[in-house]
Amino acid sequence: MSPSKTISEPHWEDAGAKKRASLEASLPKEWRVPSDLLPHESQTDVTNWAETSGWFTPEELSITNSTAAELLPKLASGELKSLDVTKAFCKRAVAAHQLVKTCFERALATARARDEELARTGKPVGSLHGLPISLKDNFKLKGLDSTVGIAAHIDDPADSDSPLAQLLEAAGAVFYVKTNVPTAMMIAETVNNVFGRTVNPRNRLTTSGGSSGGESSLIVLRGSPLGVGSDIGTIPFFLSHSIKNIVLTLYYQGGSLRIPAACAGLFTIRPSAGRFPVRNTRSGMPGQEAVLSVNGPLANTIEDVELYSKSLIGEKPWLRDPKCVPIPWREVELPKKLKIGVMWHDGMVRPTPPVARALREVKAKLETAGHEFVEWDPVDQEEGNELLGRMFVADGGLTIKKELDRTGEPWRPEMEAYSAAKDLTTSEMWKLHLERSEFQGRYLDRWTKAGIDALLIPTIPFNTVRHGAFKHVGYTGVYNVLDYSATSFVTGLTVDKSIDQLNGYEPLGDICKAVNEDLSTDDAELMHGLPISLQLVAQRLEEEKVLAMTKHVLEVIA
Amino acid sequence: MSPSKTISEPHWEDAGAKKRASLEASLPKEWRVPSDLLPHESQTDVTNWAETSGWFTPEELSITNSTAAELLPKLASGELKSLDVTKAFCKRAVAAHQLVKTCFERALATARARDEELARTGKPVGSLHGLPISLKDNFKLKGLDSTVGIAAHIDDPADSDSPLAQLLEAAGAVFYVKTNVPTAMMIAETVNNVFGRTVNPRNRLTTSGGSSGGESSLIVLRGSPLGVGSDIGTIPFFLSHSIKNIVLTLYYQGGSLRIPAACAGLFTIRPSAGRFPVRNTRSGMPGQEAVLSVNGPLANTIEDVELYSKSLIGEKPWLRDPKCVPIPWREVELPKKLKIGVMWHDGMVRPTPPVARALREVKAKLETAGHEFVEWDPVDQEEGNELLGRMFVADGGLTIKKELDRTGEPWRPEMEAYSAAKDLTTSEMWKLHLERSEFQGRYLDRWTKAGIDALLIPTIPFNTVRHGAFKHVGYTGVYNVLDYSATSFVTGLTVDKSIDQLNGYEPLGDICKAVNEDLSTDDAELMHGLPISLQLVAQRLEEEKVLAMTKHVLEVIA
Repeated sequence: MSPSKTISEPHWEDAGAKKRASLEASLPKEWRVPSDLLPHESQTDVTNWAETSGWFTPEELSITNSTAAELLPKLASGELKSLDVTKAFCKRAVAAHQLVKTCFERALATARARDEELARTGKPVGSLHGLPISLKDNFKLKGLDSTVGIAAHIDDPADSDSPLAQLLEAAGAVFYVKTNVPTAMMIAETVNNVFGRTVNPRNRLTTSGGSSGGESSLIVLRGSPLGVGSDIGTIPFFLSHSIKNIVLTLYYQGGSLRIPAACAGLFTIRPSAGRFPVRNTRSGMPGQEAVLSVNGPLANTIEDVELYSKSLIGEKPWLRDPKCVPIPWREVELPKKLKIGVMWHDGMVRPTPPVARALREVKAKLETAGHEFVEWDPVDQEEGNELLGRMFVADGGLTIKKELDRTGEPWRPEMEAYSAAKDLTTSEMWKLHLERSEFQGRYLDRWTKAGIDALLIPTIPFNTVRHGAFKHVGYTGVYNVLDYSATSFVTGLTVDKSIDQLNGYEPLGDICKAVNEDLSTDDAELMHGLPISLQLVAQRLEEEKVLAMTKHVLEVIA
Repeated sequence: MSPSKTISEPHWEDAGAKKRASLEASLPKEWRVPSDLLPHESQTDVTNWAETSGWFTPEELSITNSTAAELLPKLASGELKSLDVTKAFCKRAVAAHQLVKTCFERALATARARDEELARTGKPVGSLHGLPISLKDNFKLKGLDSTVGIAAHIDDPADSDSPLAQLLEAAGAVFYVKTNVPTAMMIAETVNNVFGRTVNPRNRLTTSGGSSGGESSLIVLRGSPLGVGSDIGTIPFFLSHSIKNIVLTLYYQGGSLRIPAACAGLFTIRPSAGRFPVRNTRSGMPGQEAVLSVNGPLANTIEDVELYSKSLIGEKPWLRDPKCVPIPWREVELPKKLKIGVMWHDGMVRPTPPVARALREVKAKLETAGHEFVEWDPVDQEEGNELLGRMFVADGGLTIKKELDRTGEPWRPEMEAYSAAKDLTTSEMWKLHLERSEFQGRYLDRWTKAGIDALLIPTIPFNTVRHGAFKHVGYTGVYNVLDYSATSFVTGLTVDKSIDQLNGYEPLGDICKAVNEDLSTDDAELMHGLPISLQLVAQRLEEEKVLAMTKHVLEVIA
């Protein structure tokens, strides 16, 4: 908890400006890109800037273009020094612009210590020996702020590292940067009043998603080989809806790892609660437990996602975090013939033509490879989303508001649902828990009866959107309510404006119409060439299985 | 959920009387004990009545005096018929008087089906083939009420069996009886306005504990070879205490399996949440999730407790209950040298002389056997109990009150804390969650730092008490807050009034003084000869380990 400050005048704007200036000043001169080398603002896709700018040495490019799985054996053998790898990622992270906090001194000191230890003992520190890993802003590193985009948390440095950071560091990781989030991590794009907005390097007019959008942006730019985000609140979804006879304006959320992964074209896993430690991290809504917050890796390959998961679980997080379950890493053997449910739409918003095409093509290839498909009825999806929205605003937004009020910071417009909500009583909350448990039971029964191994569905119903235009998180949020394990993976397919057109389209409602028409007509040009991701969902606590299935899917569709 | 009834006049007394009469009428004539064979009311210990009354045949006695582990191989081989075994337990259960509901018709039909299937296929149905198992009243059996001691739930028969019952039945079990609980299962003795009070067969002036006291009483009388109870609320503890500068009168609770096991001299395990299914059972406080409710077996031996646990987990409860974790049964190998923390008292109430003696003697024998002991500081116990109390009354008792009001049923005097409590807001509840998580983290850190395998502590600070005199649940409730796995086991030692005397006793407070002085002076005669139990606590989700350790302790002290 932050110490309370006695404030007579609103000062959130001053605090934010000061913070941004101090961040800017903290960037070492030798890593700051000279302005004449920066891309012109009219260049929307900046993913190839690093290669073409001449700012990086061939060795720096070779290092930072590697995956974690490629770097680790070289770090463990001493072929690459952790110091050189860390410096290269520091430099590229500075160039990436999206980073919001740095701890380069700590990074270089840790990297040197790793290199010395390897030289002295001949043995790597652990399975992540010497690898720089970026952390989302909600993880605590001693001496650094963890603002989660709220001005009141500026100048409130952490006393100690989060257990997750302790465990990763014990496995050999090097921390060098923390990344931007939306206010309280409860908006689906990455924008807040402290650091501003993070954009998508594949097209700077679009969002890299939220709430782990600082991570997704940095990783796409190869400013990080592997990053850690969290998944609970995210992506506002404006919807006028009738619930229990009251017309509410609700922002639905849920998918803070999968959404930025899909927007930026990366791989991630949303684990079930209890696999990875959450203790002593900054939460947007501390104490909210009706839907559990989790965290997980974002990376350029599914192998790196698996490598991280296995390494972290190998450190026995249950000895550090009472919310973790003592399930060691389990090797899985997949059935020869997978049974997969496919859901073409969620009953609320149809996926746009490229996403629908990816779903059809991936399914067809899996069928050819001998796997079985059944249709998954979207009958429960809307209720799951409604439950999520009600649980998130169950405190009437008071917990966040209290923090905003400390500096007079206003609600961001995306968070209207919070400011309009009512603080439920505990007896009302208990009833909401029952509704949620009932829903979880019903979904499980359908799953068990169908005997499926996984669901293949969209991650988001589009590729990404223009800033401020995010409209639907129905495909991810339900699995936060259910606490299922799920990956978002890049299919290898990209949007082709010449074939991805709205033909014979029947909208499921106003949002569906808006999403599909905007993206397929007005923004067809903007979307062209962007990567298309899908989501694979497995049961609760089946992280190993969902990763193994995703790897298999990728082999089949390669 | 019960259908709401529109009631103009209080009618809880009528409803209760009618229910008791209908229960009485439902007992088959041939199993009703003729009044001249019943023990005189002055006989307090009725545990040997079955053997001496002449009411049972030698075969019935042989069957009902067996453990589940002894019966199962004979049932599986066909040496014993499920029908004969079920009839014998039905008859002895009727005699036991404590049972509150019966389904003898279903029982005999199931038993016949089991016998026929074995005869036809030569194979037992499952690992619990043909075994009668008693269920606490909160479990649902189709067509039977599940009143949890509340008049409003009379005549509201269940539509379907609880998943726990379905899984046990799939493993071969036969259901024949449900057992009494206190009102809403939130009192530490087994007393309610519907069925009245359940007493301890070892001394009918004392309690068999709560809230699974119907089970403990029935099993001690061998009216059941194995029963299922639940563990969350129980045993009221009246205490004036200063919390957050407000003087509150609190009833602390937690220990509904371990307390009745200790009071009656039986074995049990309190599993961590997620091992055994809880779905579609009647809760006293439905939707309360800050402290998770669990259920588990009560039996005459630790082997039967283990047998049940292994059988149930073998049925993959996670396919039926979304709250279950997919952890199959894990065989454990114990370290040669266990490191055990011993806590001599919990900082609030010292154990009475016999319990303290058992603790010393068991520790000494384990040390002789080569195990290591460290002292466990009770520094956190009081806070854990306070948290438990606050979480249980967080809805201001409204959830229970709503059910009581439907028939005008008054609060029982033991539940004063509920009627006096305030319905917290959700934002207040989130803060309480944080306090609890902080507490869980601190306790885990101490545990990990000490590197212990288990804690050896009292289950309750005495053997049992006179009806209405239960005063402290500090030793069990903390582990409900922590969700640790724990057994209560019978040490084989019994109270000896000649040696178990208060010498050099320094009370830790008023309750401590009252408990110790009452039981060691006024009630010394009452306690003489009663069994002494202790509690072994392991970490969260270490059910296999805590059972293996308990078995080892029993071998060492045998």
